[in-house]
Amino acid sequence: MRTEQDSLGKLDVPDDALYGIHTARSMANFDSAGEPLPIELIYAMVKLKQACAAANAELGLLPVEKAVAIADACGDVLSGKYDDQFPIDVFQAGSGTSSNMNVNEVLANIAGKELGGKLGDRTVHPNDDINKGQSTNNIFPSAIRVVSVDLTGTLLAALDELFQGLEKKADEFSKVRKSGRTHLQDAVPVTLGQEFAAWANALRKAEKRIAFACMSLMELGVGGNAIGTGVNTSAAFRGKVISALNQATGQEYRVAENGIEITQFLTDMAAFSSALKMLAIDLNKIVNDLRLLSSGPNTGLGEINLPPVEPGSSIMPGKINPSICEAANMACMQVIGNDAAVAAACAAGQLELNTHMPVTGTNIVKSITILIRTCIALNRKCVSGITANEDVCRKYFERSAGLPTILNPVLGYDQVAVLVKESLRSGKTLAELVREKELISEGEFSTLLANSTGPAS
Amino acid sequence: MRTEQDSLGKLDVPDDALYGIHTARSMANFDSAGEPLPIELIYAMVKLKQACAAANAELGLLPVEKAVAIADACGDVLSGKYDDQFPIDVFQAGSGTSSNMNVNEVLANIAGKELGGKLGDRTVHPNDDINKGQSTNNIFPSAIRVVSVDLTGTLLAALDELFQGLEKKADEFSKVRKSGRTHLQDAVPVTLGQEFAAWANALRKAEKRIAFACMSLMELGVGGNAIGTGVNTSAAFRGKVISALNQATGQEYRVAENGIEITQFLTDMAAFSSALKMLAIDLNKIVNDLRLLSSGPNTGLGEINLPPVEPGSSIMPGKINPSICEAANMACMQVIGNDAAVAAACAAGQLELNTHMPVTGTNIVKSITILIRTCIALNRKCVSGITANEDVCRKYFERSAGLPTILNPVLGYDQVAVLVKESLRSGKTLAELVREKELISEGEFSTLLANSTGPAS
Amino acid sequence: MRTEQDSLGKLDVPDDALYGIHTARSMANFDSAGEPLPIELIYAMVKLKQACAAANAELGLLPVEKAVAIADACGDVLSGKYDDQFPIDVFQAGSGTSSNMNVNEVLANIAGKELGGKLGDRTVHPNDDINKGQSTNNIFPSAIRVVSVDLTGTLLAALDELFQGLEKKADEFSKVRKSGRTHLQDAVPVTLGQEFAAWANALRKAEKRIAFACMSLMELGVGGNAIGTGVNTSAAFRGKVISALNQATGQEYRVAENGIEITQFLTDMAAFSSALKMLAIDLNKIVNDLRLLSSGPNTGLGEINLPPVEPGSSIMPGKINPSICEAANMACMQVIGNDAAVAAACAAGQLELNTHMPVTGTNIVKSITILIRTCIALNRKCVSGITANEDVCRKYFERSAGLPTILNPVLGYDQVAVLVKESLRSGKTLAELVREKELISEGEFSTLLANSTGPAS
Amino acid sequence: MRTEQDSLGKLDVPDDALYGIHTARSMANFDSAGEPLPIELIYAMVKLKQACAAANAELGLLPVEKAVAIADACGDVLSGKYDDQFPIDVFQAGSGTSSNMNVNEVLANIAGKELGGKLGDRTVHPNDDINKGQSTNNIFPSAIRVVSVDLTGTLLAALDELFQGLEKKADEFSKVRKSGRTHLQDAVPVTLGQEFAAWANALRKAEKRIAFACMSLMELGVGGNAIGTGVNTSAAFRGKVISALNQATGQEYRVAENGIEITQFLTDMAAFSSALKMLAIDLNKIVNDLRLLSSGPNTGLGEINLPPVEPGSSIMPGKINPSICEAANMACMQVIGNDAAVAAACAAGQLELNTHMPVTGTNIVKSITILIRTCIALNRKCVSGITANEDVCRKYFERSAGLPTILNPVLGYDQVAVLVKESLRSGKTLAELVREKELISEGEFSTLLANSTGPAS
Repeated sequence: MRTEQDSLGKLDVPDDALYGIHTARSMANFDSAGEPLPIELIYAMVKLKQACAAANAELGLLPVEKAVAIADACGDVLSGKYDDQFPIDVFQAGSGTSSNMNVNEVLANIAGKELGGKLGDRTVHPNDDINKGQSTNNIFPSAIRVVSVDLTGTLLAALDELFQGLEKKADEFSKVRKSGRTHLQDAVPVTLGQEFAAWANALRKAEKRIAFACMSLMELGVGGNAIGTGVNTSAAFRGKVISALNQATGQEYRVAENGIEITQFLTDMAAFSSALKMLAIDLNKIVNDLRLLSSGPNTGLGEINLPPVEPGSSIMPGKINPSICEAANMACMQVIGNDAAVAAACAAGQLELNTHMPVTGTNIVKSITILIRTCIALNRKCVSGITANEDVCRKYFERSAGLPTILNPVLGYDQVAVLVKESLRSGKTLAELVREKELISEGEFSTLLANSTGPAS
Repeated sequence: MRTEQDSLGKLDVPDDALYGIHTARSMANFDSAGEPLPIELIYAMVKLKQACAAANAELGLLPVEKAVAIADACGDVLSGKYDDQFPIDVFQAGSGTSSNMNVNEVLANIAGKELGGKLGDRTVHPNDDINKGQSTNNIFPSAIRVVSVDLTGTLLAALDELFQGLEKKADEFSKVRKSGRTHLQDAVPVTLGQEFAAWANALRKAEKRIAFACMSLMELGVGGNAIGTGVNTSAAFRGKVISALNQATGQEYRVAENGIEITQFLTDMAAFSSALKMLAIDLNKIVNDLRLLSSGPNTGLGEINLPPVEPGSSIMPGKINPSICEAANMACMQVIGNDAAVAAACAAGQLELNTHMPVTGTNIVKSITILIRTCIALNRKCVSGITANEDVCRKYFERSAGLPTILNPVLGYDQVAVLVKESLRSGKTLAELVREKELISEGEFSTLLANSTGPAS
Repeated sequence: MRTEQDSLGKLDVPDDALYGIHTARSMANFDSAGEPLPIELIYAMVKLKQACAAANAELGLLPVEKAVAIADACGDVLSGKYDDQFPIDVFQAGSGTSSNMNVNEVLANIAGKELGGKLGDRTVHPNDDINKGQSTNNIFPSAIRVVSVDLTGTLLAALDELFQGLEKKADEFSKVRKSGRTHLQDAVPVTLGQEFAAWANALRKAEKRIAFACMSLMELGVGGNAIGTGVNTSAAFRGKVISALNQATGQEYRVAENGIEITQFLTDMAAFSSALKMLAIDLNKIVNDLRLLSSGPNTGLGEINLPPVEPGSSIMPGKINPSICEAANMACMQVIGNDAAVAAACAAGQLELNTHMPVTGTNIVKSITILIRTCIALNRKCVSGITANEDVCRKYFERSAGLPTILNPVLGYDQVAVLVKESLRSGKTLAELVREKELISEGEFSTLLANSTGPAS
Repeated sequence: MRTEQDSLGKLDVPDDALYGIHTARSMANFDSAGEPLPIELIYAMVKLKQACAAANAELGLLPVEKAVAIADACGDVLSGKYDDQFPIDVFQAGSGTSSNMNVNEVLANIAGKELGGKLGDRTVHPNDDINKGQSTNNIFPSAIRVVSVDLTGTLLAALDELFQGLEKKADEFSKVRKSGRTHLQDAVPVTLGQEFAAWANALRKAEKRIAFACMSLMELGVGGNAIGTGVNTSAAFRGKVISALNQATGQEYRVAENGIEITQFLTDMAAFSSALKMLAIDLNKIVNDLRLLSSGPNTGLGEINLPPVEPGSSIMPGKINPSICEAANMACMQVIGNDAAVAAACAAGQLELNTHMPVTGTNIVKSITILIRTCIALNRKCVSGITANEDVCRKYFERSAGLPTILNPVLGYDQVAVLVKESLRSGKTLAELVREKELISEGEFSTLLANSTGPAS
């Protein structure tokens, strides 16, 4: 153990720990979540530190040698080999000071060693060098923004994969006519393909919402110091940090329009989380429908088959359950729950700061990650393997109490009503009745059927 | 118009208004909700005022003549003839001061007139007489408690009516065997009656939760004055108010254990609202199931018929939708939304007071009222008229992939698995296969079928 | 009473009722909400009916005479004189069929009378004429979209008024230096004006979110018929309806990209409601801050004074409470609750339809209306009358433990730490200590103070 | 790798894995949560398996030798040494079949080895022996109940510790008079001790709610088989399982009144989660107040000092933040979010089963754990070290605009109003004014002050 000191006194730190006394205190102080801050959020802080070091060097505020060592240290951490050096619990200081200092300490020690120093000797200083021009109050929320932007890219790709998967099935099932159902009751005809296309379209909209919400996260408060006024920093600092970050990441971050507002309000994050929730709502609806349409085999709707992924029951031989869909249902509910935590946290800012940032960032990272994996699993393990029971669909198409509606323009509402009742009573299908009664010609009837899933020309 | 005055200056009040200047100010100040506080909540305040007047008279702090006049005025308001004198918007002073003063002013003017005074002349004083020993900070939350207790009685009766309705159907359908469905997939047998009985049992539990939550609302802070310490009031006051209230209402209210806690925390109300939400969750599940089981007529499960209440479609002749169920679904969602408002409000107390009481009380009154009406409508317009499609149920019973499970104890899991596959492939029912293969005797098989919806003896 | 008939049988309708049998049934069936659908939502349906009549006439499907009579009838209803003819409870058929038929019946009777008919004689037919080419399933959700777009205009204006009000105060208080507070603890300096400007900026962002969400509501499913396929309607119908509507309203509505998706998914509405919630979160934070900064007069922060609107206490003479702010807090909580109801409703679609539309539309209309009034009340009755206690602000500025931070770049972190401790111990201000110790020149110190609320140049 | 086989085909399993093919499939199928089911929930399943084995042995359905081996295997797992054998993701089959089979497989292999078998050879069969008389559909929800009951004991102890801590401070500060604050404005006097006692009382109520909700979790569906009817199990089985479980755990579990209801409805769990949320709401309010009262040092209320746990700022020397409180705030928000997930999941049952159990159980376990740790941290690292700034409190007591209220009964509302205004204008305290004006005797005044925080006798 080595001994370190801060304004509260001395404390032992493990000999080989790259972190320092602040981290050690925080490890002792915080344990309520039982899990550390997501490493992706740590990485985002490190990316910001790297950009700040570059900016400080450019402004002549940090010796080039140190700046290089810091940049290298950042690279090392981003490579993933020091993940165990960031153990601080999610529920920590509300600004994330504990984790910001953890990052400062680890980077300082790695960089210091590169410059010939020893662990804890402050060859590179965690506050004066690593944290230079920064404050937790802008680094931490900026990091939430950066990690969200990073992960959004992956999410949109996963969403697109699922979109493509649904579109493919929409094509495959474009000729499978069936009965629509409104109020869960027989309705006018639709094709199975049209249903898949509708789901795909809903995802397209979800994508747009996420992309819009993500755009507002490109605005960063970094450089604003403790409350966003930028006191004690050079006026040029903010712009240079953003430039360095954009160069490193290929993104288009921009300086916050109002540094004070962005330090007080986390509403951009709440709005982003809400956009994720909207996707969760849509995915949940889609898998609910998949479960309904595949219900059976003998007592349900039975229109489609989901690919089996595991035996469904320990007591019912041969039972197959829609497990991938159910996992997706639960994933969506978790995202809804995470959003409730985020909304509560983002709503609770007071005066110059919102001190509920770690819980916000953690839930957002989790929600995006959950959604990424859910989209991919849904596509690869479920949607791509769906097959249609065309006979069942055709049977519903022919027997639906909604089908006669297509005769309305020809026979009128009243005569059709009589047909519907006769069909329900006799069990005869519409086609049978039409033929039996010779109400319209076979050709006319075929045309009506052919056009039954779209507008009359 | 008559002119009245308070510490902020003069203001005109309509000549015949029973309310006074404070109410007039509040009417001008507040309009965001666009609706007044629920009259039931006003009544609860009036009941408390009546009890306070009795207690004050008993303690010799209020002349008997005035106390009698005040009691009479309270009776008048409770008769419903002055409802239009309480127009203040829900979103007002967070403690409900506006409405408390409204009540004080109206009662003072009615009582004053009885004693020969004129409107606004303070023959009976709104603050010194009507509000004597009170503060909005305890009258208003006590009123929320009183109105909740009042309405809970009605709710439990409505809930019981629905419970009885479900039980009756449970009896009626006790012999209708069908297939259970888990994961929406074929499962082991159940009777339709067992399903109704399960729903009824869920309501029994909901009732217990509401009753428990309501019990904690019997504790009243009235008499605690501005922050619950009871400063400036006689130590005997609280007990006497409660006695008078219990005598008048027949309830068993009790003095708050800790007057300060009950002024700071509205969590008892949040917990009560949550118990209402639990009922909403259950009702929602039940009507979801009713809608699923009645789906069809030709493309759904079609096990039961809901009584039609209106034509279901303007374009599909003969379509009948589960409208009463859908109305119930929406009612439940509103209760869930109201609960979110209540939870947010109750969580936002600061130091000695929670200033979000009118929104809390209003949403609670609305939720109870919605649930009362929903339970009654569900029973009378839906449940009581439900009929079973016994043929459909029997068909599912016989063809369910879950039925073979009942052979497990006799034939073993492996042989049953073979049967299930053969059944699915050939379309033959279990009974057909058992007979064809003579796997077990007809008698044994009958016994198994007869016991298929309960434990083996 | 006159007697009318539908597929379920006969029913009496009041002689002078403009509505017909379907409405009468629905009035008897539904009462759980205890309030009718918002009239604004009815109006939006009427606007759509008007556009549909025009389109039908243009397509030659409706005689010009009838189309004119219908257009006139729509105008009459929109003038507000028949509001009492739309009494149906919010919790009705989940698609809103009850209210759609109510509108059809009222318009048919008004138009029919104009053409010489009698009430109920179907001179103009509610289904065949008024509802021509329509279905509740697209009229109702399209109406929610139209009413939302309509009201959004008013909301954005109200929001802008509040924004201007805050900006004006930002200017007025631009020289009032004070201490920032992070974690509710002393932080670096800020001006009172900067705080108001930050709040204003948050509103600007809220506005953008609402505008974006509103844009997606411009897409209308009208013309898609029961499930969005447009069966039984002319392919040209949708476009012509939109054209007529745009001409009448001056908006830029557009035909739904995917008619089936827009009938199944209400997520656009959930997203819009969420944008409203984001504004509620922001307003709530702003008024929370206003209440904190105006806390006192003698035991709080006391930096600003809110204009008094009513006496604050029935027992504490002279007490003034932040009632307008508290009303706003509660309004925001209601919007949060309404959003929970909307989110639950929009998430619960099944197959071809989401049958929770009336609860969705009603809560959205209420939320927008509440926010409109809250923004206006906040500006006119609170923000515009706020005054600063400059002495108090200056005292905090000078004594804040955060002020010494501005010396960091000159004296270094360690020497400043010593100053902070001495200041806390001795009660001397930073200025006193700096002068006493002659640490830096008076001129340098003045410059630092002058720049303390912004970046160093 | 060894190869195992099930109804879907063959699959490789690692040679030394105690789990089998079902687990291997699930590991490949599910990864969306990125974390396994909480081990405490696995343990609860194991406790149930142990009780089932005992019951089956007693009923003569399981050879004693096997029952003993199973009991031993359960003990081994409960000792914690096989935690890594339960890797299945939270978002799995909605009934928890994946994890139930995981438990079955691991126990079967451990027990089989004890009986001389080899891994995977089914000496003890996962389905026929371990899962005997069970179904995931009752084992999994019963396990959620058991783990909740287990953890509730720990939670109530932690809550009691915090309660005691607050009570101790209530005693310590019982003489520290200060000004109450309502609406954040000066109000009548209170002691600092009364505030701590009020918080303690709120926790007492929270405890009662949790205990009540937990009582309903003592009801177990175990033995009900797939849908709660108990088909294929002995009627005596349920009772014997409960007996064995009660003997092993010392708890008082009971057989479900209605096995079908308890399989369909998870509302008991939602209600329990809600009780946890109520505690979170209370804790959040308490720490919010602690942060307000300790705000400062120079620009806040400054009535109390929280013990420092880490330096508060990387840029403001000497800054100490209320980090333990902030961590508690965030913990509470997470519990609120978890409850939203639980409520959504529990509301989504369909027909005979609710297939959202793993997400329900996981969030409940997390919430309880978070609350346990938060209560303990709050007490040990914050409450126990709180000190009062008695001078500040006295100053507020003397200068509060609420203090004059205590003169109301003696001088009357009007004369007091004059005093308040004079005090605000002149800056003189009430005591100074009373003495200066000789309004009442020094003795009378002292008595009033002495009684100012409680009812007049």
